[in-house]
Amino acid sequence: MTGNVIVGQSGGPTSVINSSLAGVFKTAKDRGADKVYGMLHGIKGLLDGDYVDLSEKIQSYIDIDLLKRTPSSYLGSCRYKLPDVEGNEDTYVKIFNKLKELDIKYFFYIGGNDSMDTIKKLSDYGKSINSDIKFMGVPKTIDNDLAVTDHTPGYGSAAKYIASTMKEIIRDGLVYDYPTITIVEIMGRNAGWLTAAAALAKGEDCEGVDMIYLPEKVFDIDEFMNHVKAVSAKGRSMVIAISEGIKVADGRYVFELSDHVEFVDAFGHKQLAGSAKFLANKIGSELGIKTRAVELSTMQRCAGHMTSRTDITEAFNVGGAAVKAAFEGESGRVVVLKRISDDPYMCITETHDVHDIANIEKKVPLEWITEDDYVTEDLIRYIRPLIQAELSPIMVDGLPRHLNVNM
Amino acid sequence: MTGNVIVGQSGGPTSVINSSLAGVFKTAKDRGADKVYGMLHGIKGLLDGDYVDLSEKIQSYIDIDLLKRTPSSYLGSCRYKLPDVEGNEDTYVKIFNKLKELDIKYFFYIGGNDSMDTIKKLSDYGKSINSDIKFMGVPKTIDNDLAVTDHTPGYGSAAKYIASTMKEIIRDGLVYDYPTITIVEIMGRNAGWLTAAAALAKGEDCEGVDMIYLPEKVFDIDEFMNHVKAVSAKGRSMVIAISEGIKVADGRYVFELSDHVEFVDAFGHKQLAGSAKFLANKIGSELGIKTRAVELSTMQRCAGHMTSRTDITEAFNVGGAAVKAAFEGESGRVVVLKRISDDPYMCITETHDVHDIANIEKKVPLEWITEDDYVTEDLIRYIRPLIQAELSPIMVDGLPRHLNVNM
Repeated sequence: MTGNVIVGQSGGPTSVINSSLAGVFKTAKDRGADKVYGMLHGIKGLLDGDYVDLSEKIQSYIDIDLLKRTPSSYLGSCRYKLPDVEGNEDTYVKIFNKLKELDIKYFFYIGGNDSMDTIKKLSDYGKSINSDIKFMGVPKTIDNDLAVTDHTPGYGSAAKYIASTMKEIIRDGLVYDYPTITIVEIMGRNAGWLTAAAALAKGEDCEGVDMIYLPEKVFDIDEFMNHVKAVSAKGRSMVIAISEGIKVADGRYVFELSDHVEFVDAFGHKQLAGSAKFLANKIGSELGIKTRAVELSTMQRCAGHMTSRTDITEAFNVGGAAVKAAFEGESGRVVVLKRISDDPYMCITETHDVHDIANIEKKVPLEWITEDDYVTEDLIRYIRPLIQAELSPIMVDGLPRHLNVNM
Repeated sequence: MTGNVIVGQSGGPTSVINSSLAGVFKTAKDRGADKVYGMLHGIKGLLDGDYVDLSEKIQSYIDIDLLKRTPSSYLGSCRYKLPDVEGNEDTYVKIFNKLKELDIKYFFYIGGNDSMDTIKKLSDYGKSINSDIKFMGVPKTIDNDLAVTDHTPGYGSAAKYIASTMKEIIRDGLVYDYPTITIVEIMGRNAGWLTAAAALAKGEDCEGVDMIYLPEKVFDIDEFMNHVKAVSAKGRSMVIAISEGIKVADGRYVFELSDHVEFVDAFGHKQLAGSAKFLANKIGSELGIKTRAVELSTMQRCAGHMTSRTDITEAFNVGGAAVKAAFEGESGRVVVLKRISDDPYMCITETHDVHDIANIEKKVPLEWITEDDYVTEDLIRYIRPLIQAELSPIMVDGLPRHLNVNM
């Protein structure tokens, strides 16, 4: 083993992204890596000379176990997308100079499809200058929208949090003896994988949610109102799951139907929130039914106290598999999960060319969405193995303990 | 033992209200009660003849353990407040006839200060007609706003959920290398006990929240904006906790400062939500900082998967203590918790005259709120023992298992 390792995290946090970091760190050390550096705030940190020697931060087995249980990106994150090489060679020269300075031979990036774009560009550029640095992508995203891989690390834990919380919200929402409607808004701008996880709540101890609306299918607001009206006329309360990204036929998001001026954030992005509130208000004022809008918000991606052991183990394994592949000479590839069997559930890792994965979004197949506003058994069967088993938080003084790079 | 027992639940759900129900049921059976009935949807269920024989529903020790871990009111709830006796004798005659019909000698009601009003009215009326039925109140509310008792069952678990989730939201909120502001809105319309629990997040592994705003103190919006501006000018991200009930000097809720028409629900109540969103929007548009508003919504009161063992045990004990007191002849009283010692934390149960408790709200003392928008160590020392230890959910097929009265 000659040369050092560097690893970064990018994009939106998940509750298991640090388990992948632990997998990269531990496997690299076990296989004889000298230094393992962590970029702070992803590739932007590298450009700014902002990195840490991870051996100084992760000093014991308990640290590794705390890291696995720490939600969000331990090393910080960024939303920085590398520019195309053409016309921006200086950025690439700067990065490769930094890597040379630190004697880096192996570069790992943990992230979603935007982050895989970074691996693609760096490995392509590296190849063009005959660099011997190996670049590997480690997949993560709660959205589960990455191509090629059976599913993404991060999704199973978010799905488990959503299904568990939905069971609790259903208990809470059905408590009165008059009809009430609870609308729960779930993340996933373009892909409905997370929202579909609400279907797992239904079981021998739970009524389940009444309706599920994914962004893959056009949302028909009149049909929705009729459905709600019909059920509540029977005196029944309902709990409804919607994706934050549902759109009506003309392409507008549901929250855009509101007639008050919507908030645009400092970056000019329309804030994607409020479809549940919009629908709840509409039901309240038009049908006179008591309603509540609930947003699972950031909790669904950072609930480190409620992770799937299946997910957190796979997250660790994809990190380790990336190191193994790179140390064996692979580059410009992403570790993917391949499901070998559904029952018993078995999944192995493979690697795949990053060009087939970067910038591509995988959506829920339309045949997994039913006519009566729900999802099929096939979709439920696909998700259920991913939420199995737990990794208990390490509780200190009544609260889950984390590892903090700054403390 | 002659005569039967009836028990009901009322008001907003908590994640441990069913532990009190388990305490009433088990203690009553252990002490020789014949039938233990459960009113469905509180006193309203009794009036409508809607009740169950709990022995048919809770058949084993595993059922009791599932019940303790089931959030929200197992028996359903109501928001029905008994009318004054004068002019409404028929309602009381109807209730007492029902009780006689079922041979009820002991009546237990689990709820907050509105529910204690029911105990007060029924025991006062009972006394006036020389009834020998014993009426006892069992306290619960996440709001912790009940008089006399040191704290209320339900509060500790909600505080633990809030502090844990806040730690996770802080990890998520501080992930970028540019200033972002996360504003988290917490329940508690008039009392800031729940919002104060956000202070517990701070510790050797967590930066904590930057500011905490309780409804007990007038919210100065200009001061708030200046504080945010000063901190973010240093490039620092912030996480801020606010109560849903914060008001400005003229008495308006913060969300009422918004210039778009606010939603009024089917019952004519203004929906108390949106102060975090209002402030986030204001910061985004006036200061150009990336913001996010998070509402802990119903999750903070129904997160049965993240309860305090201290709380859930006390909830069970107040149920048991109510039965013991009633069986020994007490009536028109409420079980309260009395803290004997802070370190080690010790708390015993007593009973207290319901007239001192019904309809009274206990707020956070102003001396526990600091000038720099935070809370004092005294307040933190008061809360911390209440979140200690856990009661693990019973996980089945990847999700917490509940007991469901309808299934």
